[in-house]
Amino acid sequence: MRRIDWRQLDAAQRARALLRPAQQAGAETATAVARLIEDVRARGDAALRELTARFDGAELDDLVVSAAEFASASAALSPALRDAIDEAAARIEHFHQAGMAAPYAVDTAPGVRCERMLRPIRRVGLYVPAGSAPLPSTALMLALPARLAGCRDVVLCTPPRADGSADPAVLHAASRCGVRRVFKLGGVQAIAAMAFGTDAVPACDKLFGPGNAYVTEAKRQVAMTDGGAAIDMPAGPSEVLVIADGGANPAFVAADLLSQAEHGADSQVLLLSDDDALLDAVALQLEQQLATLPRAEVARRALQASSLVRVDSLQEAFAISNDYAPEHLILALRDARAWLPQVQAAGSVFLGDWAPEALGDYCSGTNHVLPTGGAARFCGGLSVASFQVAITVQEVQPHGLAAIGPCAVELASAEGLDAHRLAVALRLQELAA
Amino acid sequence: MRRIDWRQLDAAQRARALLRPAQQAGAETATAVARLIEDVRARGDAALRELTARFDGAELDDLVVSAAEFASASAALSPALRDAIDEAAARIEHFHQAGMAAPYAVDTAPGVRCERMLRPIRRVGLYVPAGSAPLPSTALMLALPARLAGCRDVVLCTPPRADGSADPAVLHAASRCGVRRVFKLGGVQAIAAMAFGTDAVPACDKLFGPGNAYVTEAKRQVAMTDGGAAIDMPAGPSEVLVIADGGANPAFVAADLLSQAEHGADSQVLLLSDDDALLDAVALQLEQQLATLPRAEVARRALQASSLVRVDSLQEAFAISNDYAPEHLILALRDARAWLPQVQAAGSVFLGDWAPEALGDYCSGTNHVLPTGGAARFCGGLSVASFQVAITVQEVQPHGLAAIGPCAVELASAEGLDAHRLAVALRLQELAA
Repeated sequence: MRRIDWRQLDAAQRARALLRPAQQAGAETATAVARLIEDVRARGDAALRELTARFDGAELDDLVVSAAEFASASAALSPALRDAIDEAAARIEHFHQAGMAAPYAVDTAPGVRCERMLRPIRRVGLYVPAGSAPLPSTALMLALPARLAGCRDVVLCTPPRADGSADPAVLHAASRCGVRRVFKLGGVQAIAAMAFGTDAVPACDKLFGPGNAYVTEAKRQVAMTDGGAAIDMPAGPSEVLVIADGGANPAFVAADLLSQAEHGADSQVLLLSDDDALLDAVALQLEQQLATLPRAEVARRALQASSLVRVDSLQEAFAISNDYAPEHLILALRDARAWLPQVQAAGSVFLGDWAPEALGDYCSGTNHVLPTGGAARFCGGLSVASFQVAITVQEVQPHGLAAIGPCAVELASAEGLDAHRLAVALRLQELAA
Repeated sequence: MRRIDWRQLDAAQRARALLRPAQQAGAETATAVARLIEDVRARGDAALRELTARFDGAELDDLVVSAAEFASASAALSPALRDAIDEAAARIEHFHQAGMAAPYAVDTAPGVRCERMLRPIRRVGLYVPAGSAPLPSTALMLALPARLAGCRDVVLCTPPRADGSADPAVLHAASRCGVRRVFKLGGVQAIAAMAFGTDAVPACDKLFGPGNAYVTEAKRQVAMTDGGAAIDMPAGPSEVLVIADGGANPAFVAADLLSQAEHGADSQVLLLSDDDALLDAVALQLEQQLATLPRAEVARRALQASSLVRVDSLQEAFAISNDYAPEHLILALRDARAWLPQVQAAGSVFLGDWAPEALGDYCSGTNHVLPTGGAARFCGGLSVASFQVAITVQEVQPHGLAAIGPCAVELASAEGLDAHRLAVALRLQELAA
């Protein structure tokens, strides 16, 4: 891991130090993804079966998970894992429910009632990847807010294992959230199927969930296509930024950095501190802990693109963090809460020494689908609102029109929109008659 | 306007009847837009001045609106127009403020506090077009929620008139909302400048506002570019769908259809009714009102792509509307409120005979920047939330970690993420020691 002294860098060097690995797929990937999408659109389920055989090594007659497979999945899990999934689900549901938006109505003038109502998105598609391992936690993070939003038509895709079965933990998690329409599909073919529909898979209005570079590119392409599905957010490699003071526990900080780094070679981790001794101690801990990690090779490659940064002050650390806008921000600080007002852009924040980022990934209650690649500058993580549309309503009584109509007439005239003016003026005349 | 009997169409004909004109820019437009963006990125302010001279016919030394121009703008307006802008602003502010999300916190377990906090997006860019005429109402619709969100760095671009001045009504509206950083820039060059920054124009995190096909394509392109700005929503030609029963006023309905049709030749309007006499009467009214409209030519062209649709029942009309997901939905129905629960997808709804869509455009209080092209299936119109990011936070006490840590350990093990497991296990060991 690079060691950087922020005070000795000029502006260009500072910008370079915070540069993320390129997010966008290369032209070759983009073309390959476009071909796969086209194939699914043209040949439907036949293409899905062929691509699943090619990429997942599974020959499937039926892409959909049967009731029998659901039943045997839950039975196949250890009680401890089943309980952990249920326990995490309860806390995620608790937190998300508490943050749900409510409809509201106000009278903006006598006889003019304006309101906002909320509706679930009608058809949503959830993608649960299974890169190095299947991710039941992601099934919870996608399906619970969809259920709270009231979505009735929920489809979930997850790649099959080579024996043609779906991961039982993912199935148990989906079932816990009321999702019973699960397809054994992964990668680009899953995204294309949910975006445009096939005989077996219904077309969805919006797609959710993380994935590798191919899945991300597929989501980007369908979102750009007329009549394609919307997507939850731009997605990219996972990342963490830790701000630690001299009182932080170096073993904890190193463990948090590594738990981000093990996600993939393209993950990025940053540690900012105003304390040289802490930086030294974390560097040492990183080496010691890496020695015991099964995924050490992946983590080592991620750490090569990452930095330990000596800053002048914690204030400076927060300025850097707000520019970088990390997906995860850990504040390993004494009185961490007092620093919270400084945070302007981040996906999710972890306060103090006892809040490892892994808790947010699984079971604190917050959502782990979060903005990456600097998107935290302009969007937040998944919530129930991501699965809803807000619709405004105006109900106007005759005396309400009399009260505010003249204002509309004046503005329509100024903007040269005569039919707008007329639509109001006609009604005002009728009232006056 | 075509007259369609829904009952006599097969499924394919029904789908065709609801087809919108193609939304996406052709390859030629896309290439032209990409070249303009590249020019602004490469040559900055020099390119902005040249393009402004070429497209707006204005030779500008200084792109920014001066304090003196602001002062003379307000003075130049008629008192009636100044009052109308201020009156509309007050109602828009009232409605938007009432719907603001609040931060919240819940304990998902003893010692585990999860919260959501809200932050304004740091730098936002607003685009106020001036196609046929400048649009002070759009300045209000963009700048008021930005101010309520607490955005400190707000930039507004609007095309200059040929004499090099900005429209005084737009300046007064901006000023009313606290926006003092206005650039005389239009079209692709304005979007490129706000997305990537030049010496004069600061780079913004997110861009807002409607525009013509070039502006829309420019927004799409910058949103797809690594490090480019996010955008508010996919934008397209304006549209209205009216559901009217036999008791509706044909003159009002015709006026509402025309006020949408006059926006542009690519606007789309649809009237659904279960009453033949009403459809006849509206057709007649359309011809009569068109005869008096200054923008009749534009409206006529829009009506050519539009339809009067005879449905079997109002229930059927709502099913069609929910599939179409119109930007504006007018319910010209007896007891319109009783039908509101049927609405599943729409930008903004207008209830009854006394709520012309023009009120929502100007001064009922709702936002007029709304999803078009069917995007109401998955997103709503602008609100204060569009200018904020939601950040989740978790604060965990040692006894909180002891309570929920084992759940995280179990799930991390199941997902094969050992460093995640270790980050929690290390802390649990420390607590046990």
